[in-house]
Amino acid sequence: MTTIKDIADHVGVSFKTVSRVLNNHPSVSEETRTRVWAAVQELGYRPNAAARSMRTGKSHTIGFITDSIATRPHAGNVILGAQHEAWQHGRLLLVVNTEQDPTMEEEAISMMLERQVDAIIYAAWYHRPVSPPPMIKGVPCVLVDCFVEDYSISSVVPDEVRGGREATEQLLKNGHHRVGFINNEDKIPATFGRLQGYRAALTAHGIDFDKELVIEGQSDSSNGYECAQHLLSLSDPPTALFCFNDQMAMGAYEAVKERGLGIPEDIAIIGFDNLELIAATLRPSLTTMQLPHYEMGRWAVDYLMGIVDGDQERLPVHEKLECPLVARQSVT
Amino acid sequence: MTTIKDIADHVGVSFKTVSRVLNNHPSVSEETRTRVWAAVQELGYRPNAAARSMRTGKSHTIGFITDSIATRPHAGNVILGAQHEAWQHGRLLLVVNTEQDPTMEEEAISMMLERQVDAIIYAAWYHRPVSPPPMIKGVPCVLVDCFVEDYSISSVVPDEVRGGREATEQLLKNGHHRVGFINNEDKIPATFGRLQGYRAALTAHGIDFDKELVIEGQSDSSNGYECAQHLLSLSDPPTALFCFNDQMAMGAYEAVKERGLGIPEDIAIIGFDNLELIAATLRPSLTTMQLPHYEMGRWAVDYLMGIVDGDQERLPVHEKLECPLVARQSVT
Repeated sequence: MTTIKDIADHVGVSFKTVSRVLNNHPSVSEETRTRVWAAVQELGYRPNAAARSMRTGKSHTIGFITDSIATRPHAGNVILGAQHEAWQHGRLLLVVNTEQDPTMEEEAISMMLERQVDAIIYAAWYHRPVSPPPMIKGVPCVLVDCFVEDYSISSVVPDEVRGGREATEQLLKNGHHRVGFINNEDKIPATFGRLQGYRAALTAHGIDFDKELVIEGQSDSSNGYECAQHLLSLSDPPTALFCFNDQMAMGAYEAVKERGLGIPEDIAIIGFDNLELIAATLRPSLTTMQLPHYEMGRWAVDYLMGIVDGDQERLPVHEKLECPLVARQSVT
Repeated sequence: MTTIKDIADHVGVSFKTVSRVLNNHPSVSEETRTRVWAAVQELGYRPNAAARSMRTGKSHTIGFITDSIATRPHAGNVILGAQHEAWQHGRLLLVVNTEQDPTMEEEAISMMLERQVDAIIYAAWYHRPVSPPPMIKGVPCVLVDCFVEDYSISSVVPDEVRGGREATEQLLKNGHHRVGFINNEDKIPATFGRLQGYRAALTAHGIDFDKELVIEGQSDSSNGYECAQHLLSLSDPPTALFCFNDQMAMGAYEAVKERGLGIPEDIAIIGFDNLELIAATLRPSLTTMQLPHYEMGRWAVDYLMGIVDGDQERLPVHEKLECPLVARQSVT
């Protein structure tokens, strides 16, 4: 087994210098760094994290369990945010995608505990209540974009109500008084929260809620198209549409264009989620509200590190993060 | 420190039964499993992977280093495929997203070697040549959706030429003789390969290559729109368009619709990549070629496990996987 001393002898520098390079200490010249790493490779030296983990009881990894974030194109930024923050704390993420299979979830958590992860993040690809295996409480843990009904585990989710309010206000501020809302039909927090926000914005602007202007459908582009068709054919149609998500907005675009109307000059449209693939590529590009995926990922790691490094117990918290406006070309 | 014996005494079962539950052996009743896991949790027992790793020199993890697959919506299925295959082999993926920062790449690889990963996957979010840090060769490794120019490291990539040929043939088979090709302008393997495939298909069908029918632009929807506008205004316009990717096809849809033409009855359109968010939601839904992301992920792990478990050296291989047709509604 190659030791640090072997590397030092081989390169002709001190033990301390090699140690500094291995720990990425800045006070070593680029040239020496390069030579040390070349020797590390040549001699096959490996600093032994397993031994260190045995000694300290810490693995410097954070388990990241998710239903399907790594698979689906919607929420990858949760991983990125968590990864960035973990990196700042000298930790790696151990990511497992369970596809919500309870057996795989249990096995993943068990394997993570076995590998002595410092903490676990349990993240969903969309905001919903969950029932994680109780074993998860074996280490500090936090739920991302999901929550347990009794709030006994800390969680971080998007502020759906505020997002819905601000999306609607963006239309009201631009002089629209008849604002249609094309909502999702699923009974999930985003559906309820965004509707509540829509109503709150109307109230704040002294506009009566008109249930004729709210329509529900499956949250895809076909249903966005159908719902927009319906709202645009009302006797007193809206001049602006708030769509539950960007896919529904994509369908609404089709309906507006088919009637020979222009976006945003005849009909303003605002979406939700900021799926770049859709929002940035629609013509005109879509103004929408951004889900705080990146921020939730960062928040989760930051919160966990406060517990792990601070060695303190905390009561569960439930954080709601803002969904900021991403202004593009579909609202005036 | 809690031992397996403590758990066995607590639950009132044998040492062997507890061991079986911990190793997910099927021959234990659901009731006993539940009681054992409850005791594991209550008594705080943790099978010590660090100790096992010290003993066996194997960590049962596979490092997965990527530029940005976890962040971007394009290639998440590489992680899913690798994860599924790794799971079959009782291994977890240690995923790190480096954003192509060379320092972060080196640190990630160094941390992975330190944690004694059994193997490393180095994956790009689109097919391109790469220069991974040489340290990566410290363990069995494979490149996914990328390759080194001298092919000294094994790699798996999409068969771009075959994909381009089959996309074009799909249009030719449907009776189209004037097939436009809206290509990417970037000098990358997908650009060259798909063009080569387009030409091969024409040749195989006895159709002369007409350079007027090939146009290049940035691979986004605006440029897809502009390029389609150009091709449709030719004196002898195409009746079918093969688009470099689904975003360009999305723009081509706009151009076709603006001219009052129908898809597929007037103009057939085929894309590439099968980005579900776009291809499945366009109206009509887009026929396209699927990038073998999932299959490349699986292939990579399967290949690595052959080396790790088989304890054998292998010469580097360079695998090209098929891009299968996903038939939807935009081609007749």
